[in-house]
Amino acid sequence: MTTVAYLGPRGTFTEQAVLDFTAAGHIPADANLVTVTSPGAALDLVRSGDADLACVALESSVDGPVTQTFDALATGEPLQILREHDVPVAFSILIRPGTQLEDIRSIATHPVAEAQIRGWLAEHLPEVGFVPATSNGAAAAAVAAGEADAAAAPARAGVLNDLEPLAEQVADIKDARTRFVLVGRPQSPPARTGHDRTCVVLRVPNQPASLVMALMELATRRVDMSRIESRPTRERAGTYDFHVEIVGHLEDAAVAEALAGLHRYCDKVRYLGSWPQEGWIGGVSGLEGSVPPDYASSREWVRELRRGGRNG
Amino acid sequence: MTTVAYLGPRGTFTEQAVLDFTAAGHIPADANLVTVTSPGAALDLVRSGDADLACVALESSVDGPVTQTFDALATGEPLQILREHDVPVAFSILIRPGTQLEDIRSIATHPVAEAQIRGWLAEHLPEVGFVPATSNGAAAAAVAAGEADAAAAPARAGVLNDLEPLAEQVADIKDARTRFVLVGRPQSPPARTGHDRTCVVLRVPNQPASLVMALMELATRRVDMSRIESRPTRERAGTYDFHVEIVGHLEDAAVAEALAGLHRYCDKVRYLGSWPQEGWIGGVSGLEGSVPPDYASSREWVRELRRGGRNG
Repeated sequence: MTTVAYLGPRGTFTEQAVLDFTAAGHIPADANLVTVTSPGAALDLVRSGDADLACVALESSVDGPVTQTFDALATGEPLQILREHDVPVAFSILIRPGTQLEDIRSIATHPVAEAQIRGWLAEHLPEVGFVPATSNGAAAAAVAAGEADAAAAPARAGVLNDLEPLAEQVADIKDARTRFVLVGRPQSPPARTGHDRTCVVLRVPNQPASLVMALMELATRRVDMSRIESRPTRERAGTYDFHVEIVGHLEDAAVAEALAGLHRYCDKVRYLGSWPQEGWIGGVSGLEGSVPPDYASSREWVRELRRGGRNG
Repeated sequence: MTTVAYLGPRGTFTEQAVLDFTAAGHIPADANLVTVTSPGAALDLVRSGDADLACVALESSVDGPVTQTFDALATGEPLQILREHDVPVAFSILIRPGTQLEDIRSIATHPVAEAQIRGWLAEHLPEVGFVPATSNGAAAAAVAAGEADAAAAPARAGVLNDLEPLAEQVADIKDARTRFVLVGRPQSPPARTGHDRTCVVLRVPNQPASLVMALMELATRRVDMSRIESRPTRERAGTYDFHVEIVGHLEDAAVAEALAGLHRYCDKVRYLGSWPQEGWIGGVSGLEGSVPPDYASSREWVRELRRGGRNG
């Protein structure tokens, strides 16, 4: 039976992603679900073989990359991203039945959630005290336990904790989404769809302009990037690895050639997977639907030259 | 009188940075200190004129950039980074006098602190429960109030809250440091020292390879980068600005020429300041002490050609 590890408790956005991945057939309906307390812990269960898949948050459309996840993917035994899914991030303000707006003195939220509803709170609950919680699910549980008067959490956390919504779809920035990914052990990536992403971690040589030289491996092949972050190596202050997300699939000839070029040029390249794009399409260039060029005709031209055939 | 805003309460690492900046003469000894609850709030007090300077965390040698700070610098009225200072990040485990190790059931910490002492806790307090706090100073205050048995916080937070250290210099990663900066309203930057940093936020054109083209403005002038991050614009999912840190000063000819090139090429450039390097020196190339080249002789050659002088 397939075992899937995710950040719990139940009622988090991560659990919503697990449910959606299951509905889409990427997690078997009879899978054994295991909750853990951090993205890194979920990935470690896959590394140890105690889980087959981990469902972890990768990126927020508002707050950017989830660095805990990226750092955990970049070190330790290699793992591979297999699928992505975007979950709309809107909060319900959850209360115990019967609580009135004027009775609310404290609100439990995860700090990331608090940042996303600050404007709403300032308008509707200007005097409320903020009780930090370790997850959105834990925030709802704290209200059920009487430790706070209200929680900002996914609607489902209210159902699970017998709470009522005082307000729904609360979010300062409209259409905020969080991207979750399914991660497994190294394997052949899912089939190319023509709208795919590839992610790698680069350690560039100890030379001036080395990052630009590495990125030229992509640019000369017209392979578009969708994100780049420098992350501390944790080995020495001031040394960084680069997390680069590419538009395209390992089976795209241009991407394959660019990755081989990066492997030649960089001191270290870690492949984090190729998988179908599902949610928002972030190309650095902002060009939606940017796809790697087709190499067939240029390669055929070279083959013709080798055969002594037509030169044109 | 100078007013300085910083993330409180007293006893945070940010307060330590304020004390150190004061000892170094960058904050007047008689300054009026105002505590706020986030880096963004500190910066907004400078924008509104209610404070002259904000002291905010910019980057951790372990966890990378403080995205709250960068996002707050990238939007709103422009502000300017004037000085940096690195604070060693080591925690004291603080208890009420008389508490024994075996009595500790709960420990209050800021979530970022918890991540940095997880190994120590697993070894010495494997069964302890984690009470999230909004700051290291608040964690110590929670112990003083009896809301937790211990706190992980700077030593000074123990002094301020009448707590005793059970252990000192606790940190899973040795030599971890956090970089703080002093931020003011736009002004001429502090004088060039020859070992300086410059920071800009770029919005690159909507074209393939545009990020590489922008970075070539630096590379062709042998100007080294020390960090790069894509950050969501928050205007549309999948669109990003780039935060780039450069080795050198606005008064370096090479940096000035590169910045002018970026201004020509990019859709938008926000200058975040030039200031003396103090702490760890992060060049992407890993070359410590990398400095922009001197342009004097090449410019003199061009002037000579214009005068019809020697060509060599």
